[in-house]
Formats: sequence, structure tokens, C-alpha cells
Amino acid sequence: MNDNRPIGVFDSGVGGLTVAKEIKRLLPNESIIYFGDTQHLPYGEKSKESITKFTTAITRFLVEQDCKAIVVACNSATSNSIDEIREAAGDVLVIDVISPVAKKVAYELNQKIGVIATKATVNSHAYKKYIRKYNRHLKVIELATPLLVPIIEEGFRNTQVSKYAMELYLSNKKFEDIDTIILGCTHYPLIEKEVQAVFQGRVKVVDSPLIVVNHLIHEMRKLNLMTDSTEPNYHFYLSDYTENFAKLAKHFFGKSITLEQKQL
Amino acid sequence: MNDNRPIGVFDSGVGGLTVAKEIKRLLPNESIIYFGDTQHLPYGEKSKESITKFTTAITRFLVEQDCKAIVVACNSATSNSIDEIREAAGDVLVIDVISPVAKKVAYELNQKIGVIATKATVNSHAYKKYIRKYNRHLKVIELATPLLVPIIEEGFRNTQVSKYAMELYLSNKKFEDIDTIILGCTHYPLIEKEVQAVFQGRVKVVDSPLIVVNHLIHEMRKLNLMTDSTEPNYHFYLSDYTENFAKLAKHFFGKSITLEQKQL
Repeated sequence: MNDNRPIGVFDSGVGGLTVAKEIKRLLPNESIIYFGDTQHLPYGEKSKESITKFTTAITRFLVEQDCKAIVVACNSATSNSIDEIREAAGDVLVIDVISPVAKKVAYELNQKIGVIATKATVNSHAYKKYIRKYNRHLKVIELATPLLVPIIEEGFRNTQVSKYAMELYLSNKKFEDIDTIILGCTHYPLIEKEVQAVFQGRVKVVDSPLIVVNHLIHEMRKLNLMTDSTEPNYHFYLSDYTENFAKLAKHFFGKSITLEQKQL
Repeated sequence: MNDNRPIGVFDSGVGGLTVAKEIKRLLPNESIIYFGDTQHLPYGEKSKESITKFTTAITRFLVEQDCKAIVVACNSATSNSIDEIREAAGDVLVIDVISPVAKKVAYELNQKIGVIATKATVNSHAYKKYIRKYNRHLKVIELATPLLVPIIEEGFRNTQVSKYAMELYLSNKKFEDIDTIILGCTHYPLIEKEVQAVFQGRVKVVDSPLIVVNHLIHEMRKLNLMTDSTEPNYHFYLSDYTENFAKLAKHFFGKSITLEQKQL
């Protein structure tokens, strides 16, 4: 039995594209409907109430679009509103970006795990809670690094600006002896190499998009949700059209994608 | 005849506080109602439609609060939505942050004026249009420097991050021989000294908050809107509570201010 309905993916902006791109790489035949809530970007500085309002509306929209699975490709949304999102999704499969990563990390040979993320994610302590659920003995140090999102949105990766921002953040005493780092924001895979450079190889960077998409595949197989089509469609909805989003979406998905403005 | 109603001031976030602070300094007896639309921050990356929707709702709210004047303390709002804001304000005095500055600059001995601002302001070419209206012979070069807002919001002023971001932006060839610079975003007065340092004194930085508030005083006198009270109140409405806003508002206005969450 096959299921040719699309996979829904959403984020406040371009960050979720790192997850969507990984879905395309590992599931090249699946169609994707992406919702970028650029009108309310960035979620990482917003309150729990606001994030919940926005993300449940998007979830209901993706259910209406007949998505067979919904990937919450945003850490701030996952950490603040995952229960409400699951409720809004009804019986549609929901995959978040934190719990699969936390589980994977908890069972490896780590001692002290650093997490960099937005304020909204750090304030929720979602990574600490999830990781400790699986392994109570791990130390988890969470650090808010909110400027990294706008640095990435501005295209200032690989400059002195990103270098010094990362040095300022990562030289924090709390991170002194971490052995593993989780990039707890879907934007951050775009600066993974720079994070590695700061630590000069002595810290392992967790590949979150890979873990999340592997988990998605596992759950889709279990529920017989894999497609047998070989003609995937990529449809992008934006609550506010931004050049930056269009550019990055086309860079990852090619020029034949559909971009549509949509307010919820 | 005196008028003890408050002055309304609004912005998407903390930037407008640089204008509100100047109102408090020059008009210490006037009460202020400030609306910070932190739920939709930053305006500078949003579309004209979104900015207009948010700012006209805020204007109507400030009119309902019986404000005698409304200061649009946001360049992105001014440049995209000032006509709609004036319409929403009815016969209440509206002061924007661009036209008084443009007029003042146009009549001084400048040759080539640089403007740094958000994307929304630069894309509107508001400064160029307004300045040229008064003096067709001036060269006006507009440059979007969107990362400066989040750098300020993050408290990364006076660091290597702000230094290199400014150097990256201001070393733009288009700015090679400017003699005057306008800080076309109400956040930027907070980094005025750093801008001056990049130009090592060879470029004059325009004091926009002073010009705007002098214009406000001029118009209020003309319309008999000055207060005779000596007990000013400062009431701050936020569409989404953020620590950063509360901190800066208390820093500028003291701890006895009223902070209230309010969604429109």
C-alpha cells in the first residue's frame, strides 16, 4: 500500500529548509508542502502563547492540504508548542526536531552535551528534559545564541562577523569541557563548519537533520506512508514574501518550485 | 489653553525608545503612551502590506487612548505606511521620523548623503524622495544594514561583532565619499559612536531624534497641545512581552513605568 500525499514541513523562515533539503535527499520521490511563517519570523524571540497560536494555525492548514505527515522543522515551535501542534494535527503523523535527536544523543558515549539555540528553546529547557528522560547521568548545558539566526538570514556566514559572534557565544565558561554540541535551531546546520572551527575538532557536532529525517522514514515505513510516485512536487507557502527565502528555497530545490503567499 | 492628553509613540520594538527618550528629555512634563509591536518585530524585513496592517491598528489604538499626537518612531513604518497611518489617525497630529530629518539635511551644506536603514526603508527610497523634494542637487545613497538591529537587540554593541558588521556594511564603495550620514532606523542612535569611529570623524552623523522631537515641539506649540501638568505618566504596551524591551524601557524611563501586554 502506498501513499502519494505530500509531507508537510514548517518553520518561521528559512531554517526549516535544512530539514526539508534532507527529506528531499533521503526521500527524493516524496512531495513536500513547506510553510514558512515569515510574517512572524523569528519565533525564537516570541512568547509561548504567540508561537502556539501561529503553529497550530499552520498545522491545521497542512492537515487541510491533506499532508500524510507533518515535520515541525523548528526548535522554538517544538519546545514551546509540540503538544498543541499534535492535538491540532489529529491523527496525522507529527515529527518534531528535538525528541529524536535527544534520544539518539542520550544513548551514545557522551558525557557533557552543549546545546546552542534560540531564547525560546533555551527557556523551555526542552533538550535537557528530553535527554535526561533517556539518560539521567548526562550533563546538558543550554546556551541561547539568538544573533546567529539573523547573521545567517543576512548572508554573513564565513565572515569576521559570524566568527566573532560564535567566539563570543561559544567561549562561554559553561561550554569549557563539553564533548558534544547540538545545533538546536534548524538554521544552524548552515554554519556547522564554522562551529567546528571554533572547537578545532575537539567537540562532536550532532547531525540533527539526518537524525530527524531517519526518524521520519522509520515512522513512515511503520505506517505505510511511503510514496510510489516518481514525480515529486515542491510547493512553498510564505505568510510574507521575502527575497531571502525565495533565493534559498530555489538554491536547495531548484527553480521549478511553486512559491505562493498565504496568510493564515 | 493647555492639553494634558498623552503623546503616543510606537515602533516594532526597542528602537523607538531612542525617540521616546528624547521626548522625555525635551518635554519632561508630557505623558507618553508607547506601543512596542514586539510580536511582529522586526518590521524592517516585512512587506508593505504587513507593515500597514500592523501600524494602522496601533494608530487606531493610540487614538482610542486619546493621544493628542502620534509619533511614528519607526523608519520602516514611516517609509511604507505613513499615508495609511495619517488616515487612521484622523485629525490627530502625526509626526514621522523621516520628513523632518530630510528637510533639515536638505538645507544644510551637504554634498553627498549616506543613509543606513532596514531593507523595508531602503526599498521604499523614502529618504531619497524626501531629500530630493527639498533639494534636487544632493546625492543620496541608501544602504540596507539589517543586521545592526538584531546586534543591538542582543546587546552586542561595542564588540568585535558590531565593529566588523559595521566595517562590512560601511566599507561599501557607494559610501566612499559621503560627507554626511543619516541613521535611518530608530535603533541606530544606540550605536552612533561606533559609526563615527568607522569614519574617523570625516563624516557628520545627523542627530535624527533631536530633529524629530524639535519638529514635534514646533507642531505642538502651533496647535496649543503643550501640557501644564507636572506629573507625567509613562505607559508601555507590548504586543508580546520581551525581557529586552522591559530592561531598556526601565533603563531610559525608570522603574516606576507601567508595562502591559496588549494584542491588537
